[in-house]
Amino acid sequence: MNSIPVQALGELIGTFVLVLLGDGVVAGVSLAKTKANGAGWIAITLGWGLAVTLGVYTSSFMGPAHLNPAVTLAFAVIGKTPWSAVLPFILAQMIGAFLGAVVVWVQYYPHWAATKDQAAILGTFATGPAIRSPFANFMSELIGTFILIFALLGLTRGQLTAGLNPLIVGVIITAIGLSLGGTTGYAINPARDLGPRIAHAVLPIANKGDSDWSYAWVPVVGPLVGGVLGALAFIVLP
Amino acid sequence: MNSIPVQALGELIGTFVLVLLGDGVVAGVSLAKTKANGAGWIAITLGWGLAVTLGVYTSSFMGPAHLNPAVTLAFAVIGKTPWSAVLPFILAQMIGAFLGAVVVWVQYYPHWAATKDQAAILGTFATGPAIRSPFANFMSELIGTFILIFALLGLTRGQLTAGLNPLIVGVIITAIGLSLGGTTGYAINPARDLGPRIAHAVLPIANKGDSDWSYAWVPVVGPLVGGVLGALAFIVLP
Amino acid sequence: MNSIPVQALGELIGTFVLVLLGDGVVAGVSLAKTKANGAGWIAITLGWGLAVTLGVYTSSFMGPAHLNPAVTLAFAVIGKTPWSAVLPFILAQMIGAFLGAVVVWVQYYPHWAATKDQAAILGTFATGPAIRSPFANFMSELIGTFILIFALLGLTRGQLTAGLNPLIVGVIITAIGLSLGGTTGYAINPARDLGPRIAHAVLPIANKGDSDWSYAWVPVVGPLVGGVLGALAFIVLP
Amino acid sequence: MNSIPVQALGELIGTFVLVLLGDGVVAGVSLAKTKANGAGWIAITLGWGLAVTLGVYTSSFMGPAHLNPAVTLAFAVIGKTPWSAVLPFILAQMIGAFLGAVVVWVQYYPHWAATKDQAAILGTFATGPAIRSPFANFMSELIGTFILIFALLGLTRGQLTAGLNPLIVGVIITAIGLSLGGTTGYAINPARDLGPRIAHAVLPIANKGDSDWSYAWVPVVGPLVGGVLGALAFIVLP
Repeated sequence: MNSIPVQALGELIGTFVLVLLGDGVVAGVSLAKTKANGAGWIAITLGWGLAVTLGVYTSSFMGPAHLNPAVTLAFAVIGKTPWSAVLPFILAQMIGAFLGAVVVWVQYYPHWAATKDQAAILGTFATGPAIRSPFANFMSELIGTFILIFALLGLTRGQLTAGLNPLIVGVIITAIGLSLGGTTGYAINPARDLGPRIAHAVLPIANKGDSDWSYAWVPVVGPLVGGVLGALAFIVLP
Repeated sequence: MNSIPVQALGELIGTFVLVLLGDGVVAGVSLAKTKANGAGWIAITLGWGLAVTLGVYTSSFMGPAHLNPAVTLAFAVIGKTPWSAVLPFILAQMIGAFLGAVVVWVQYYPHWAATKDQAAILGTFATGPAIRSPFANFMSELIGTFILIFALLGLTRGQLTAGLNPLIVGVIITAIGLSLGGTTGYAINPARDLGPRIAHAVLPIANKGDSDWSYAWVPVVGPLVGGVLGALAFIVLP
Repeated sequence: MNSIPVQALGELIGTFVLVLLGDGVVAGVSLAKTKANGAGWIAITLGWGLAVTLGVYTSSFMGPAHLNPAVTLAFAVIGKTPWSAVLPFILAQMIGAFLGAVVVWVQYYPHWAATKDQAAILGTFATGPAIRSPFANFMSELIGTFILIFALLGLTRGQLTAGLNPLIVGVIITAIGLSLGGTTGYAINPARDLGPRIAHAVLPIANKGDSDWSYAWVPVVGPLVGGVLGALAFIVLP
Repeated sequence: MNSIPVQALGELIGTFVLVLLGDGVVAGVSLAKTKANGAGWIAITLGWGLAVTLGVYTSSFMGPAHLNPAVTLAFAVIGKTPWSAVLPFILAQMIGAFLGAVVVWVQYYPHWAATKDQAAILGTFATGPAIRSPFANFMSELIGTFILIFALLGLTRGQLTAGLNPLIVGVIITAIGLSLGGTTGYAINPARDLGPRIAHAVLPIANKGDSDWSYAWVPVVGPLVGGVLGALAFIVLP
């Protein structure tokens, strides 16, 4: 097994790819004048699933490819990840997510000025609720991440061909997006939401509005709590 | 092999995940003001297929992951499942399906009050016919479940990598949904329909109408008959 | 290896499943008042791909699962299939395709009377050209089937896990449908077109029009010629 | 391993299939009166992914199936491909791409005369920017190809079943298309763009306009630079 710094580098790179492709598909579907404009929810959920798949393929040879602080924390709580790795991994995931969002800004550079809808621009970076209701939104993120961790742990108890795991993990993300994502946009990953939100706040993006910081705790705390609960629920199973 | 109570726990958990994600995708597509609103039939059929895939991944280490009384009964008739497991499995599947529907209610909590269409709300929980015609609807459910069992049994005669079976089972569900589901919404699973219908009847869901009990026998009896016929047709093959 | 009658039974059953699910998805998308109405070209191409996948899963333990006279003839020409199997296989494929179309009629029974568009009803059973131009349509079917056979033969030279072959074959069908199917509806299989066209002609379908026999030779001869050419092109490769 | 001429033949055939199916799906979605007309961005991105998958299946038994000069150059720079193969491979890829575009012209023959939109006709053959901005467009192609090479190299460090690699490569292409393709139409492959652009220039296509040669350098130089940078970034990883 690689050293923790190498594993953390894997987390950084994998989360970079995940957010570049994940925020990228939202940019394609939401920003004005793109060729993907209006491609809809199937494109979003398929794109995010494949973003996670490629994030894992580009980093799993360096580390465990959590790419998500909620996964790292949950796996630490049940002893699958050493506690000494938790802070390095989460820091790396945050940096990777921030950098991924910066490259989305570059990739779609001419389209920010063409887009007048501030909510669409923020939505490219960070999630927001379909109906604002903090406790319900928190529960949505909690439930989505509970199922994510539960399914990831179920997957590890099967006998899957190792090389296909990244594909199956992407399938899980697409499934959660399709079925549970309609309420809050399924952050289910604090780094995926907070890193790009910081990028949105600091980058000189044309036409941007505010970064909706009052909502920012939901896609951070909900996934962390849901992930830990999902892991605890799984380990009591026979 | 695990004891029957452990296997039944697997049925409960897997069916819970199946209905949470399956009814969840219908909620996302059908309820008002969700981000998935209007995503259409592809989202529904892909979402249900992946719901079954995740149901199997989260339970197949405990039991056979039938997640469907029609599968359990059909496999008992041809001797693949012991008769002593039938009632525990079906009871567990019903409880899991009911609980999955309860969590869908929680997940989409603010959206029930925002949705005025009672048929859309019931449709999130239970199936209904596109054109009400009891015998034709019964035949639709029978044919869909016949093909489901026939394909599942065909799958077991191939040499598939074990870890991919949950994915293939989801593919079968998506195929049946796309091709045969347009008439009745393809329950093809009595627990998937009856458990959430009971949840619809007893939960204090905003804006709900009646639970259409006059139709409830079709997605129970049709799948049970179709499943048994599919199994019997398969075992006479060389 | 099974005897030729058993293999032919596999062809009959697999082609039955293929046409039931393939014509079924067209019925769902095209007929009036279905839940799949308007689901579009993605649903059609994905549904036909999965129809072939399930056709192979339900028959490949009995025989080679050609499910297509163009495959059988092409493989006979290059010596992969004995000539003595050609007529039994093609006859079985025709019977299976006819029966699959009959069950589609049953499955969607209330929807024929609800559908006023005769072209939509015929299109559920048999293919037709987007722009009628016999030689161009013939070339379209020829090219599509050429690629089908070429890709199937390429697949056999890889080292695929046997149990996944049915999935990959479905992927090939979806690919050809998406990329080459927009002109003639990609029969690329004489049995898939002629069997259901006969069913359309003889069944008492509500609101049906004529069966467009003047076009019927294109989706029979085009695939047979294209398949043989594709097989011959492949075997000259190093 | 095969000789370089045989490997180059594989590049030619695989790129032919790739462009036939890839440009084919754009033709289906964009040209007038096709059955796939208006199927949208999901059809395009899925179709191109599967086009690459089938390109690899039909050629990987002859050679490495790069099917892309940016892959060939990048792999030569890091020593995975001998420099002596670079020119033969790129020449073969260009010829294959040109021939693939010619067959797309044949396949959709009646639809060119039915299509009045010159941009749609050119878009069937070659890519163009959503917002014309040469440096931004160049960066888009660079970033897309960077991720392509990075992910392909990541894939080679996993333990994938060999027979599934073509499918995973297609998944990578679909992911990049969905997430990064909305700006320039993701050529990410100089042969895929230049070969069909030459075909557009020389073929007597009904209703065609000019071939937009002023843009042609972007989808050639961007992918070559991005591919080399992606390969160099990958090999410095631990």
